Amino acid sequence: MQKWYEKNDVDLGVIISSRVRLARNLVNIPFPSRMSDAEAGDVMEEIKASVFCESNIDKISHNGLLFLDLAHISELDKNVLAERHVVSPAMAQNHSLSCGLIYNNSENLSIMINEEDHIRIQSIFVGNDLDAAYDAASQLDDILSSDLDYAFNNNFGYLTSCPTNTGTGLRASYMLHLPLLEYTGQLKRLSELITKTGFVIRGANGEGTEPLGNVYQVSNQVTLGKTEGEIINSLKQLTNQIVDKEKQLQDGILKTMSSDASDKVWRAYGILSHCRKISLNEARSHLSDIRAGFNMGIGPMSSNQANPLHLKKTIYEIMTNIQPHNLQYILGITKDARQLDMMRADYLRHIFAR
Amino acid sequence: MQKWYEKNDVDLGVIISSRVRLARNLVNIPFPSRMSDAEAGDVMEEIKASVFCESNIDKISHNGLLFLDLAHISELDKNVLAERHVVSPAMAQNHSLSCGLIYNNSENLSIMINEEDHIRIQSIFVGNDLDAAYDAASQLDDILSSDLDYAFNNNFGYLTSCPTNTGTGLRASYMLHLPLLEYTGQLKRLSELITKTGFVIRGANGEGTEPLGNVYQVSNQVTLGKTEGEIINSLKQLTNQIVDKEKQLQDGILKTMSSDASDKVWRAYGILSHCRKISLNEARSHLSDIRAGFNMGIGPMSSNQANPLHLKKTIYEIMTNIQPHNLQYILGITKDARQLDMMRADYLRHIFAR
Repeated sequence: MQKWYEKNDVDLGVIISSRVRLARNLVNIPFPSRMSDAEAGDVMEEIKASVFCESNIDKISHNGLLFLDLAHISELDKNVLAERHVVSPAMAQNHSLSCGLIYNNSENLSIMINEEDHIRIQSIFVGNDLDAAYDAASQLDDILSSDLDYAFNNNFGYLTSCPTNTGTGLRASYMLHLPLLEYTGQLKRLSELITKTGFVIRGANGEGTEPLGNVYQVSNQVTLGKTEGEIINSLKQLTNQIVDKEKQLQDGILKTMSSDASDKVWRAYGILSHCRKISLNEARSHLSDIRAGFNMGIGPMSSNQANPLHLKKTIYEIMTNIQPHNLQYILGITKDARQLDMMRADYLRHIFAR
Repeated sequence: MQKWYEKNDVDLGVIISSRVRLARNLVNIPFPSRMSDAEAGDVMEEIKASVFCESNIDKISHNGLLFLDLAHISELDKNVLAERHVVSPAMAQNHSLSCGLIYNNSENLSIMINEEDHIRIQSIFVGNDLDAAYDAASQLDDILSSDLDYAFNNNFGYLTSCPTNTGTGLRASYMLHLPLLEYTGQLKRLSELITKTGFVIRGANGEGTEPLGNVYQVSNQVTLGKTEGEIINSLKQLTNQIVDKEKQLQDGILKTMSSDASDKVWRAYGILSHCRKISLNEARSHLSDIRAGFNMGIGPMSSNQANPLHLKKTIYEIMTNIQPHNLQYILGITKDARQLDMMRADYLRHIFAR
């Protein structure tokens, strides 16, 4: 079963993916930060019962649904899921509370149980498709809400563990590839402007993380006092502007500095196809250059080439797979950071070999 | 006709080449800094007459001897010869005085006429062969001295324009490839020690030049009060010590950091075979890594490889050819430095393509 980020479209254009996350809690049960383990177990059972009942399961997903009790899987597996954004880093590191995950095979629809809230529904769609992501999350929300009693207040809306999520409980986001805004130094100022409008742009691995490979996430920060439609439309408009700016820079580079850009992309390919050890940071940076080149029609993957490079994996998939835990999941566990850099180089060389 | 630096041996080991230069002046004619152009012309004619007389020419060179009047060749040609060390940079830039060059096709035996001295005999041999270089220069010196009257003083020896050359008039030197001494930061201290012993180590393009590609020249600074044999033996001993030190570092790297070294060499190859523009400095640095790898048995040229890379040119030859004037001599003249970096990348890609 193909995962969402294994679809070829994921490498097309500035927008890698569109994501919606809904925070929900059950009424009369304390939030996860204050609940007992027995209550946590009850929440898991209630949600599982709703999702996996025969009348719901087919409505929710056509390609299978899995349940994982996070207490019963390895640290590596938890971190693999966190690196793929299926669970949050906080959830992967939680050792105190019973928590679980329901997700489909393509990993684009999931429910985190007992993370910061009892329920976190997440839906991810490739490319610029926020409406589809919202529809999928809403549909799952509707199914759950018909079986479960949500904590809801007529004045505030959905009640959540953290006040910033109270209201719609909606976090909508785009994952964006912004190499030119980054290289030209314009992203910093843009980021400051965006923050003033109630949105935030940051490294795609969440708060406080480095924007590895120039991959960013732009999302709403406020959910109270706005409707879902308002939040989504504002985010769409804002993102259109960011995408236009990035494309303008790409066009400018192609007109005035195409030999520089070509050199950068080809060197990235030369290094990835020949290195013997490489850090995640450096590898993602080169992958970013190759993805940018692919979208600008330059470098080894360009159809302008006599013999364009056809990768067996998408670039975003490679970016995902070379993270420390995913890499060890694929190639075997090591405790030596040097060894990991060598394994990463082997993996990349194998993919980029002609 | 193959030039000396096109011989495969030039890439073997630490010592690239051995060189001897003899400074001589004719008696009763002022040194070049004080001579008239008529006197300069007379000196040229005297030397040409001696070299190109039928009884001498075959003794001097079996593979042809050429004479160039530097007033009659282009700036590009002069700089091409300077970059190849056939003439000095000073001579290539001289526009005031009649000066000339006699050299053989392999460019390893030459006479600069009216550089700093009337006569500068130069002999270059590939690898560790200072005796052969000295013998060849001496033989040419003997031939000239039988026809010409040298300025010689029984107390001082050969008289020269600059006092540092007075005495034997001998400058003996080795061209050395010292990447490990450079990378480990040991070369600076070694250089200070060497200077105290009457020798000097510096970038191979002469005083004040950058040691591009970790290529250095070690030579004697003093010629007065020592015999030719003493100078040459001291230089041999000193150079043996430098070579041993470099080889120890190579052995150490192979034992403890071979994956780092392998990565460095393979990346150098990846960049040279894919870049679209590259500076001389960067290109030489990568060529240095590939040459070091070749000597250490790692990287694409290593015979440990299933399909080792066989270059059609020696690495030192490539280092020579990618210099600005030699590159334009090969690929055509440009006045645009960016264009030159692109031409250099094209040239290197062509050579390193599999």
